[in-house]
Amino acid sequence: MIRFAALALCAALLAPAAHAGSQEAPCCATGDLGLIVERASGSLLVVDQSERAAIGRIEGLGDLSHASLVYSPDERFAFVFGRDGGLTKVDILTQKITGRVMQAGNSIGGAISDDGTLIAVANYEPGGVRVFDAGTLEMVADIPTGSKTIGLVDAPDRRFVFTLWDAGETWIADFSGDAPKITKVPGIGKNPYDALIAADGRTYIAGLFGEDGLTALDLWDETPEPRRILPGYGKGREGLPVYKMPHLEGWALAGEEFVLPAVGQHEVLWVDARDLTETARTKTHGQPVFAMSRPGGRQVWVNFAHPLNDTIQVIDTRSHEVIHELTPGPAVLHMEFTARGTEVWVSVRDADRVDIYDAATFEKIGEIAAKSPSGIFFTARAHRMGL
Amino acid sequence: MIRFAALALCAALLAPAAHAGSQEAPCCATGDLGLIVERASGSLLVVDQSERAAIGRIEGLGDLSHASLVYSPDERFAFVFGRDGGLTKVDILTQKITGRVMQAGNSIGGAISDDGTLIAVANYEPGGVRVFDAGTLEMVADIPTGSKTIGLVDAPDRRFVFTLWDAGETWIADFSGDAPKITKVPGIGKNPYDALIAADGRTYIAGLFGEDGLTALDLWDETPEPRRILPGYGKGREGLPVYKMPHLEGWALAGEEFVLPAVGQHEVLWVDARDLTETARTKTHGQPVFAMSRPGGRQVWVNFAHPLNDTIQVIDTRSHEVIHELTPGPAVLHMEFTARGTEVWVSVRDADRVDIYDAATFEKIGEIAAKSPSGIFFTARAHRMGL
Repeated sequence: MIRFAALALCAALLAPAAHAGSQEAPCCATGDLGLIVERASGSLLVVDQSERAAIGRIEGLGDLSHASLVYSPDERFAFVFGRDGGLTKVDILTQKITGRVMQAGNSIGGAISDDGTLIAVANYEPGGVRVFDAGTLEMVADIPTGSKTIGLVDAPDRRFVFTLWDAGETWIADFSGDAPKITKVPGIGKNPYDALIAADGRTYIAGLFGEDGLTALDLWDETPEPRRILPGYGKGREGLPVYKMPHLEGWALAGEEFVLPAVGQHEVLWVDARDLTETARTKTHGQPVFAMSRPGGRQVWVNFAHPLNDTIQVIDTRSHEVIHELTPGPAVLHMEFTARGTEVWVSVRDADRVDIYDAATFEKIGEIAAKSPSGIFFTARAHRMGL
Repeated sequence: MIRFAALALCAALLAPAAHAGSQEAPCCATGDLGLIVERASGSLLVVDQSERAAIGRIEGLGDLSHASLVYSPDERFAFVFGRDGGLTKVDILTQKITGRVMQAGNSIGGAISDDGTLIAVANYEPGGVRVFDAGTLEMVADIPTGSKTIGLVDAPDRRFVFTLWDAGETWIADFSGDAPKITKVPGIGKNPYDALIAADGRTYIAGLFGEDGLTALDLWDETPEPRRILPGYGKGREGLPVYKMPHLEGWALAGEEFVLPAVGQHEVLWVDARDLTETARTKTHGQPVFAMSRPGGRQVWVNFAHPLNDTIQVIDTRSHEVIHELTPGPAVLHMEFTARGTEVWVSVRDADRVDIYDAATFEKIGEIAAKSPSGIFFTARAHRMGL
């Protein structure tokens, strides 16, 4: 009773200080926390993985219909990139917005530098990349490209890599010196629409919309040379609008292969991770959207595009065969594994729910109410490249 | 002034509750914290990576002359395995010991299950593995092996894998069902002295002291078959006591190869990560102890055995050439990279110091006083297999 009164008194005494922008925050280890985008309400649901429960909500983030986020190295802050050009910094411990800038018009995607000091945001309007101080959100660099800019990722040694839809070039912006240094790599191909970086920060791959195939760059090279790979990839795209092309973060390393959604077909491709040639295909329930490797790579979990988007299939990495099918509910938008692969959390947008599955047994072990959930982002991403 | 008084009052009011074992703890994001073993004083130094500073010390952990630790999934707790058989649970936020058992005699090494619920500890005396509940430290399983037990690691799906020096067998203990299930794999070889698991949790490799070579197991197989690899490995061991054999956590994946300390020679070996055959060797300053891949794999940092243990060499992964040499000071025992490879922290035991280097420029950017530091463990390990 005395302790309760003490806590209440402390809350009252400290509250004015908290509103004045102090650093006080509830005690929390951050290693098992996460944020889930609630795409229709401009909010983030704060979750605790160990509790399998929501622990709060952060509101006021604007248009999150296509949003992603990255974490600071200490896991305390998330930088949220909204479709409307909003860049919002949130504190996962106080569950508050600590900074927000409207940094451009139509915008998609961002990244944090490996040392956690810079935030880069790509935009379609006016076209380019802007770089902000992660502490203050002050803009420190503006890189106009004259082109819709896609495929922005972080790379080792304080670099950002991004690609120009119109010009078919990839630019490498190096912030390790006193002034930013830009290396331009032409010849990426016709209308690159998305790109990814492999988990080791070495191979950058851009998908092409204007022609078949993808283009790979080895970022260990001083001046990377574009290399065409998977020449048949994209054959299924005739008549597809560009927003129906597969997300390239759908690539996943599983065993000795990458797995990649096929284009306009109900298949995933298996690709040798060393020479980037196709090795096999697996027929799937629908057009794959995300093919995500369970940590350890033993299985790959795949979700699908509308209208077959109530289903997930699990594919065995060695046999390449579908070994399980789940039907969580209407509009399965995203999946996120716990860092060591024990569970997978699934956004079921039109059921206002996030389902939790045991990744080994496929048993459903929990669910959390959420408002039109889309992307799920666990704090362990703070320690990975390209995420 | 009022806020300071409020905080002081809160500390006074809450203090009795804290001593009574409450959950209150100072606010702290845990993503950039770490623990450094102080091997001569039975203590752990608590460090903050972003601050590049010590923030506390935890004492009373007994004999830490050969100690390692693992983290809970939320990063809040560390489980410390001491040479004297002590298993100590510490809370990194309150900087206190929350549990401690003397679980055996002479003991070395432990692991945490992928779901964070079980702690396994190997021991030489009486010989075997004991498994404890991570919450309460109550023993839940006792697996006598009749042999000095080495190479204990966690593997996906709630398994532990360990090897028997005397019998030349590897046992896989599966805790995913109601009762533990043990699979014994004979024919590992003569006197396996250490083992490791690759970062994807798939390949387990035991080093042999009684003969040349190592033995690999593919843990994706229902019943793994031992496979001999690197038949020349160990030729340099004649006359070497077993404790001078290389640490097998010295293996590191860099690009498409593993890098491994040679035995009794001043070299590291490069090993193709796919077929586990030797591809190259690099001559080094001394007998390598740890060869650690910088996250991303671009370079490998190597430290050395006494008496050449004041030096570190940096080897380029692509050229296999030594590109830099540093001399931090007397008795460089351990190196730990920040999770995305921006910095490397180095224990300099006989200078009572931990040095911090920029991993890209090799510039020294900080140092922290520490008492006979050895192992450095950052919280990001919570999210990795086999660590």
